[in-house]
Amino acid sequence: MKKRFLYYLSIILFVYLNSDDNIICKDGKVFYMQENRKKGSKIHVLQGIQYGSIYSGIKSTKTNDLTLVQFETEATVAGIFTQNSLCAAPVIFCKKNLKNKKAKLLLVNSGNANAATGKSGYKDLENIVSHLAKKFSVQKKEIFYCSTGKIGERLPVEKIKKGIEILQGHLSKNNFLEAAQGICTTDQYLKTENYKGKIAGKEFNIQIMAKGAGMIEPNMATMLCYIFTDLKLSQSVMQKLLKEACDETLNALSVDGDSSTNDTVLMFATGKVKNNSIKLHTKDYERLKSILIALLKSIAFKIALDGEGATKCMHLKLLQGKSNEQAKNILKAIGNSLLVKTALLGADPNWGRIYCAIGYSGEKVLEKRLKIKIGNSLLFSGGKIFTKNISKANHYMKKNKIIDISIDLGMGKVSQSYIASDISQQYVNFNSEYTT
Amino acid sequence: MKKRFLYYLSIILFVYLNSDDNIICKDGKVFYMQENRKKGSKIHVLQGIQYGSIYSGIKSTKTNDLTLVQFETEATVAGIFTQNSLCAAPVIFCKKNLKNKKAKLLLVNSGNANAATGKSGYKDLENIVSHLAKKFSVQKKEIFYCSTGKIGERLPVEKIKKGIEILQGHLSKNNFLEAAQGICTTDQYLKTENYKGKIAGKEFNIQIMAKGAGMIEPNMATMLCYIFTDLKLSQSVMQKLLKEACDETLNALSVDGDSSTNDTVLMFATGKVKNNSIKLHTKDYERLKSILIALLKSIAFKIALDGEGATKCMHLKLLQGKSNEQAKNILKAIGNSLLVKTALLGADPNWGRIYCAIGYSGEKVLEKRLKIKIGNSLLFSGGKIFTKNISKANHYMKKNKIIDISIDLGMGKVSQSYIASDISQQYVNFNSEYTT
Repeated sequence: MKKRFLYYLSIILFVYLNSDDNIICKDGKVFYMQENRKKGSKIHVLQGIQYGSIYSGIKSTKTNDLTLVQFETEATVAGIFTQNSLCAAPVIFCKKNLKNKKAKLLLVNSGNANAATGKSGYKDLENIVSHLAKKFSVQKKEIFYCSTGKIGERLPVEKIKKGIEILQGHLSKNNFLEAAQGICTTDQYLKTENYKGKIAGKEFNIQIMAKGAGMIEPNMATMLCYIFTDLKLSQSVMQKLLKEACDETLNALSVDGDSSTNDTVLMFATGKVKNNSIKLHTKDYERLKSILIALLKSIAFKIALDGEGATKCMHLKLLQGKSNEQAKNILKAIGNSLLVKTALLGADPNWGRIYCAIGYSGEKVLEKRLKIKIGNSLLFSGGKIFTKNISKANHYMKKNKIIDISIDLGMGKVSQSYIASDISQQYVNFNSEYTT
Repeated sequence: MKKRFLYYLSIILFVYLNSDDNIICKDGKVFYMQENRKKGSKIHVLQGIQYGSIYSGIKSTKTNDLTLVQFETEATVAGIFTQNSLCAAPVIFCKKNLKNKKAKLLLVNSGNANAATGKSGYKDLENIVSHLAKKFSVQKKEIFYCSTGKIGERLPVEKIKKGIEILQGHLSKNNFLEAAQGICTTDQYLKTENYKGKIAGKEFNIQIMAKGAGMIEPNMATMLCYIFTDLKLSQSVMQKLLKEACDETLNALSVDGDSSTNDTVLMFATGKVKNNSIKLHTKDYERLKSILIALLKSIAFKIALDGEGATKCMHLKLLQGKSNEQAKNILKAIGNSLLVKTALLGADPNWGRIYCAIGYSGEKVLEKRLKIKIGNSLLFSGGKIFTKNISKANHYMKKNKIIDISIDLGMGKVSQSYIASDISQQYVNFNSEYTT
């Protein structure tokens, strides 16, 4: 276990020392938020990418709702999409275009998810994409288009088309933060990462913008995340890299357990850095992956803590599991348990609720080997209960925003982690007061 | 679909006309509650069974916490238990004794679940059971013992042993309601059914007592349900009957999605009625099953509406599904969705959240055939949205406590139903304020 711990520590230190941004999670305290950004931390400019965001008339709040990212020369693209079988029109479109492996434009509208809109919704999308392709002289298959917002409403096609024309004169390599703001819906702060490092002697950048899940409106809790790098990467390597990094981060994250019709993660590599293309199973690949994991983990914490009405989040660690599937099912059961979420809200070290969720996960565990810890406090070990540690754990839960909870199964060698937010009265207020 | 509807209608009418109790669900209104009982509806006495309940010192509230049911001659017994792999000591014990197929005593303590107590907890149970067996001159294998309450605490063995001695002088065939009260924890009303009918010319009785799930304390949300009948039934037929009836009722019920370490349903048949033993696949078997389903469905509604802070419950009906597994997964996803539960609380006919939950259930559906209805209002059909029906659905949701929601997949012939409560601010208050 120590080895694994040191491995993660090294990643965190590495990214911390090499990045402009602070990692959000350090000793359970939240560091980096939008306010920090406002105080003037520098955003690196990623050569070859231009951004722009405007208000086109979709959102009732009159904040930016149409965002465009242009790649000077075509970028290689990888993608991961929602597992929701009723995925929205833009997800179907992006999945199709991913086969082409190359991107010249990324368009994102917020305020309307173009979901549950059937064939008409897909036609609306094609209409907009055709207009965009024509205006920018690119092929339709080089465009990626995402939507987030209300479901069951048709897109205001003409407004978006007009918006595209305004955006054409508004693109700049300095508009990264404006774009990061434009993809948001009811996010309370920006979710960005901005990393500069070296790999095989070459300096490179990674920039990430995301919008959170579990928002009031859209009621669909869509998560969108875009990763940009100037590295040269083959599509197959990047797709594997993205999949592996997301499995440990964005795919191990729960706000309210409702996964959206529109969730999309896209990674774009411009290839401006003249590195040798990174190969699988090499040291460089593993290093790049560990950086991406640390950055996406930070994004995941930001999303969890900005969940509707969220006050805290749990960082669950499963140790000595028997299989990856077992670990995942147990972590999901705990992270989505309403009783565990409410205990977290009340800073109640209620190990019994965690114990119960482990049991109903559907996975077999051995009670006599099971250990449950909150922070550094051992609360349950093989049928023995450590009542004397309760008040220490309670103090730890009161003091911190990110609560480490570890579950040691004593059955094998698998470790996994999971991030989940708590649930508050505010969540219930928001979601019951919202009216269709 | 009409056939299925008429089938259910016939069950409800049949039970309504044949039962002393009103069925709780009629036109979406709640009828039968404890207050009705107080107004003096008659409880049939089931010959050959004696009940008793006392306060033995387990609960801090000083309400009855130790309940005993004695069968004059040995009763045939069937049982269904929690799927939680960390099941509590009493569940392990009952499962073992079920192999013996016969019962003379049922002991239930409330206030302490004897869960997560390891080997010591099981020894405590054996100690109590030995004492009980000796006092009543029965064999240990003829005893069923259930516990509900806090987890991770040892049973107060000596108090319970003393309680057993007091109970010995306190048993009576008239104490059914006292026993039904004694198994409760924080239930706000009793959950009982009391049915008299005829089968193959012979008069018979069914009595049911249950305690609800999703309670403040125990934090484990245990559901206990005991069914008593004077019919003669073979154990194998009764086990199948119970399984089939529970699959459509108590196993299709969700309060907060957290299933307990202690959930137990036991059915006891005294055989006092001199009927010919009922055989599988006969008309009598099907009739008995339909009665049991109607009674347990009523119990399920009572449990859902008494969930912590619950204000309404949804009665989900899946129509034209492809397989039972598909139907179950979709219904569970909807019933456990926080977004759907909060919409229910706010009487918001938010079909989009239902649509989304169907999608992330992991089951494939065809959007173009999918129909979603709330009450009688069609809101979504194959990509078309019926905005004009929203206000009617809203009015229906405001007016009723039991909200019918139907999801027609248009893919096959499977129908299934599911009952789930809403979630309120009170649920969050209760469960976050509770402190270990």
